[in-house]
Amino acid sequence: MAAYRLQKRCDEEAVFVVEGPKMAAEAMAAAVPLRAVCATGEWIERQKDTNFGNAELFEVSPAELERLSAMKSPNQVWMLAERTSAADAALSATTTPFTLALDRIQDPGNLGTMLRTADWFGVRHVVCSRDTASCFNPKAVQATMGAIFRTRVEYVDLPAWLDGCGQPVYGASLHGQSLAALQPGNSAPAVLVIGNESRGISPEVMARVSQPVLIPNLGGTAESLNAAVAAGILINWLSWNNYNIKKEEQR
Amino acid sequence: MAAYRLQKRCDEEAVFVVEGPKMAAEAMAAAVPLRAVCATGEWIERQKDTNFGNAELFEVSPAELERLSAMKSPNQVWMLAERTSAADAALSATTTPFTLALDRIQDPGNLGTMLRTADWFGVRHVVCSRDTASCFNPKAVQATMGAIFRTRVEYVDLPAWLDGCGQPVYGASLHGQSLAALQPGNSAPAVLVIGNESRGISPEVMARVSQPVLIPNLGGTAESLNAAVAAGILINWLSWNNYNIKKEEQR
Repeated sequence: MAAYRLQKRCDEEAVFVVEGPKMAAEAMAAAVPLRAVCATGEWIERQKDTNFGNAELFEVSPAELERLSAMKSPNQVWMLAERTSAADAALSATTTPFTLALDRIQDPGNLGTMLRTADWFGVRHVVCSRDTASCFNPKAVQATMGAIFRTRVEYVDLPAWLDGCGQPVYGASLHGQSLAALQPGNSAPAVLVIGNESRGISPEVMARVSQPVLIPNLGGTAESLNAAVAAGILINWLSWNNYNIKKEEQR
Repeated sequence: MAAYRLQKRCDEEAVFVVEGPKMAAEAMAAAVPLRAVCATGEWIERQKDTNFGNAELFEVSPAELERLSAMKSPNQVWMLAERTSAADAALSATTTPFTLALDRIQDPGNLGTMLRTADWFGVRHVVCSRDTASCFNPKAVQATMGAIFRTRVEYVDLPAWLDGCGQPVYGASLHGQSLAALQPGNSAPAVLVIGNESRGISPEVMARVSQPVLIPNLGGTAESLNAAVAAGILINWLSWNNYNIKKEEQR
């Protein structure tokens, strides 16, 4: 309940929680504006040369950190970062090999893991249906391993957005063509849609998918793949196809 | 603490916990011997024609189920299944396109997700280093989505096992060859090694990897991929190569 109230307050204030020295370092490296920093004396000591801008800095005890934290093992620092960041404008200008579209992803951990995978492959633009989990949920933020600071995430009316995007739209479907047989062709930029963990892509979004793709069930016994794993396989597949196409063009 | 004591007791008794109607149905479909079944009256009512063998059957209230369960939302049924099952012998005879080897995987959720992915691709044999998380941890069992009942999982001295396996050994490495450039060749059966979430493959195991494979960091900013996502990308890659080789041979 305390977690729920905190999340609601963060939504109202347009901030999000960043925890632990690794994520804190990523936030500072990305120059995300900070509102507040609560940390142990030891952590503060190590940031001597850091300019925290307008952020309020509080030294807290491990017990106080525990009360603030949503993590199992709170770790030295807890921050409030602003959602609308200077980085956002910079990111919108960045090129992306393709756009990742998330349709009603429910689990914050899965969402964060998908952003992390996108970041690995250089995919900097993610659009989410409005009923997708918040990328600012603390579990999502942690699972991104810093990708949240390097990715432009938008929440949109997904069917309308797809109608306007003017790009080929790939999406996982049990009735799609096998990704082993399918060559995306010379089609970058493109959009890749990942659907809900148990229900897949919604009918309204599937109607906008121009190329359904199947990860064939070679074992024949499992019912489904984990959504973040399926996303990883498809992001890898589309990345390499785009990459090979670029290499071909450069010859 | 209660969870820890329960897990210890399960280890001693060589049983594991299976929760929820979906996983319970998978266990019964796989004919895994059951020791005990604790379920709501409603669930028991629906199993009228089921023979529970030697299992003790207890009707429990939702409150009692809550005390037994490790899940956030306990769901109708909680079972104790035997680890050494009749299915094990059958599974050892099953063919597998390749063997998945897990080197000191720590997170039970990641482990379970990897078994689920293996199951999807028909990989029926998994060997784990002795310091890999237990596949019978309740979180691992849940994450398998039933794959635990269809996969032969062994805990072994991994370097010694690899020395004796007589097969090509693939493993993810930052110094490997790009999976986009590498064709595994006509080499099925093979072994694919996945390493620890933060430290990767241990030096002793890496010394046995005959073909290091790289998932190239196309974005250049992320430090790593989630271990279950990396496993998914590599299992997909090796599956398709094996599959294409088989198709070639059949021509």
